[in-house]
Amino acid sequence: MQHHPARLIGTKRDGGELGEDEIRDLVRGVVDGTLVDAQLGAFLMAVCCNGMTPRETAALTLAMRDSGRVLRHDHVQRPKVDKHSTGGVGDKVSLLLAPLVAAAGVAVPMVSGRGLGHTGGTIDKLASLPGYRTDLSPERFAQVLEQCGYAMAAPSAEIAPADRRMYATRDVTGTVESVPLITSSILSKKLAEGIDGLVMDVKCGRAAFLPQEHDAVQLTESLLAVGRQAGLRLAALVTDMDHPLGLAIGNALEVAEVLAALDGPCPDDLREITLALGVEMLLLAGVAADADGARGTLERLWRDGVVRQVFRHNLELQGGDGAVLDDPARLGRAPVVLPVEAAQRGFVADVDPLALGRVVVDLGGGRRQPGDAIDPHAGIVLGKVLGDAVEAGDVLAYVHARDRAAARVAAERVAAAMPVGEERRRRRPLVLRRLA
Amino acid sequence: MQHHPARLIGTKRDGGELGEDEIRDLVRGVVDGTLVDAQLGAFLMAVCCNGMTPRETAALTLAMRDSGRVLRHDHVQRPKVDKHSTGGVGDKVSLLLAPLVAAAGVAVPMVSGRGLGHTGGTIDKLASLPGYRTDLSPERFAQVLEQCGYAMAAPSAEIAPADRRMYATRDVTGTVESVPLITSSILSKKLAEGIDGLVMDVKCGRAAFLPQEHDAVQLTESLLAVGRQAGLRLAALVTDMDHPLGLAIGNALEVAEVLAALDGPCPDDLREITLALGVEMLLLAGVAADADGARGTLERLWRDGVVRQVFRHNLELQGGDGAVLDDPARLGRAPVVLPVEAAQRGFVADVDPLALGRVVVDLGGGRRQPGDAIDPHAGIVLGKVLGDAVEAGDVLAYVHARDRAAARVAAERVAAAMPVGEERRRRRPLVLRRLA
Repeated sequence: MQHHPARLIGTKRDGGELGEDEIRDLVRGVVDGTLVDAQLGAFLMAVCCNGMTPRETAALTLAMRDSGRVLRHDHVQRPKVDKHSTGGVGDKVSLLLAPLVAAAGVAVPMVSGRGLGHTGGTIDKLASLPGYRTDLSPERFAQVLEQCGYAMAAPSAEIAPADRRMYATRDVTGTVESVPLITSSILSKKLAEGIDGLVMDVKCGRAAFLPQEHDAVQLTESLLAVGRQAGLRLAALVTDMDHPLGLAIGNALEVAEVLAALDGPCPDDLREITLALGVEMLLLAGVAADADGARGTLERLWRDGVVRQVFRHNLELQGGDGAVLDDPARLGRAPVVLPVEAAQRGFVADVDPLALGRVVVDLGGGRRQPGDAIDPHAGIVLGKVLGDAVEAGDVLAYVHARDRAAARVAAERVAAAMPVGEERRRRRPLVLRRLA
Repeated sequence: MQHHPARLIGTKRDGGELGEDEIRDLVRGVVDGTLVDAQLGAFLMAVCCNGMTPRETAALTLAMRDSGRVLRHDHVQRPKVDKHSTGGVGDKVSLLLAPLVAAAGVAVPMVSGRGLGHTGGTIDKLASLPGYRTDLSPERFAQVLEQCGYAMAAPSAEIAPADRRMYATRDVTGTVESVPLITSSILSKKLAEGIDGLVMDVKCGRAAFLPQEHDAVQLTESLLAVGRQAGLRLAALVTDMDHPLGLAIGNALEVAEVLAALDGPCPDDLREITLALGVEMLLLAGVAADADGARGTLERLWRDGVVRQVFRHNLELQGGDGAVLDDPARLGRAPVVLPVEAAQRGFVADVDPLALGRVVVDLGGGRRQPGDAIDPHAGIVLGKVLGDAVEAGDVLAYVHARDRAAARVAAERVAAAMPVGEERRRRRPLVLRRLA
């Protein structure tokens, strides 16, 4: 580093503004290790406490983007648009959305993360598809993208290495909840992907990273401002994460739900969010004149089986077994499936996504620590959702577990997370806000 | 650690208050390494940004004290009182004060630090006394204390190990300037020394750690509150560090000034601060009825040569060569001594201690980094002080250096730090405030 680290850190400690050159120097120090762990922790905390100006956040984002390889997909003629979600419980939208939008003529270079804590990760869900590979080289990724319209991969080690160290450090230092740090982490990687546009799904609610709508909106505005400054076309939806999305929670179970949805039957909330995000992507890509037209196109492609064809094409290009589409039993299944029954008559008064997400982690379906192994078949499939009328003995949910003991413990927790009451409650709108 | 580190750090990030149990757990993590570097850096920065309540600061101090060995000197009948200075340029007070107060019947178990940056350290000054050892075991330290009334040592590795790691981390993470962190660092070590009372010399001015009087007073109040809560008797003087103390700056040069002062001739400012601190120590120890009586006792002991005798006793007990008292030339001398002359007639308009302290560091007389070797003979001896009338050609100061090239560079900087003007300026009072 050219500057003295303690001086740069001191500037943020005192609420001052760092220059672009100073921020580039700090990020250089993050990558080459001259900014030692204690200094990185102190810097991140100073940013957490005192924030960053929009100019600083933009400079940090660009410096992090430039810390590694920046891809370009110039050989792909189609407009390139990706989606990013801040993460939720049961959020398997990417798996449906990518083939849907690709079917409509947009290129979707989708780089996704692994799950941590109660929120799942797309890469973990894809890992339950037999043979499917997400460790694509940038070259192979580009080929798949060109051939079928979308590609899905874990982030390459070459992309934004500064973010990797910063993210791991934030995770252990209580510096996760910071708008400038979240903004730069998300956008540095997305900007290195070689995309023209990005749709953000910012989750908001009990199981979201930012439960309060105010915070979600603040993050969204930061993402829009910084992304635009970097030349990206953006739109964002703030969506509800007070309840799980769809019925399945758990990797292979969610993939099974997606395979079924490709053929038609799809839970309303999953369908609605997928279409809403898809419409935004088509508009950003400029392949639809307006929202109604975009929605009509997507519904037709879905209904007519084109989306399923694109999914199969991608599946085979990325090494997966196409037969799983015709025979979802090939996904495998947990040894024990235990129903959770309603103890009384009434209405489902709550479906707590945070509690359910944690049950799935404890069943082995998610990670407590980065690097934990995952049981792809562990999870929960809801039989009822918020507001459904139930009789005593009706199945509220099924627990999928490796053994009966684990299943029984999980079933009790699921029952507690899905109380039955006398009043009929309704879910708030799925799309809380649209910002663009 | 019992608690999750990121959760405890998050409490401070959000401005909350940690419980005593949580703070003890954090300090345990500092010592056993389960609080990793990044977490320590983040925690220190959160404290820097959001402060600590008095209760937290006290809990942190006690937990840091208890992180290592806590000495007791029950075998020593005399009341045990130490002095701590926050550090200045030319501050050799401890070397005079310890024998002075010991001569008056107080036990002075003095644990001092090494110098860093422009402020010197007592341990470095003592190292220029041939044979003198400051690496005493706690057992030997106690013996010396009992036999001659005072002992001087570097902190043992067994004392407050949590502070050692925290101090080193603060140094590189821009988290030095924090009242609760400074308070706990100072007092944790002092409380482990087995003392009954402590006098604080909180420096204030350009070359002080906290230049502004407001900040110095805030720190002093924090030290008094936390020290008292821990059962210590305390008094504090906020003293001027806008100018150097005494005439000598540099390790052996300062020791020579002390040796001379034991016999009588002592710069006024050095004499005044030493007596003022000594009076406080006698009062805390309960060996004097009032300040006037204490001052009278100390002046008599100094004048009558008792202080010199006690100094000699300690010198010999700690392995030093007593002959140095009769023949200060045994301290050695730098190869080059270059006078800095006044270019014009007038009054010395400034003596910038920060500039002079940095010159001494650059001459090799101080450390830029912990662990740097020190040239004991390098330094500056002032010929004039603020407000002195000078003729062109009068010697403003002497530079002591290893070679002529270094001496010439230093001399130019000394001349710049001691401008001569037409107006006669006076120094502000040495003791700015007394807090007790």
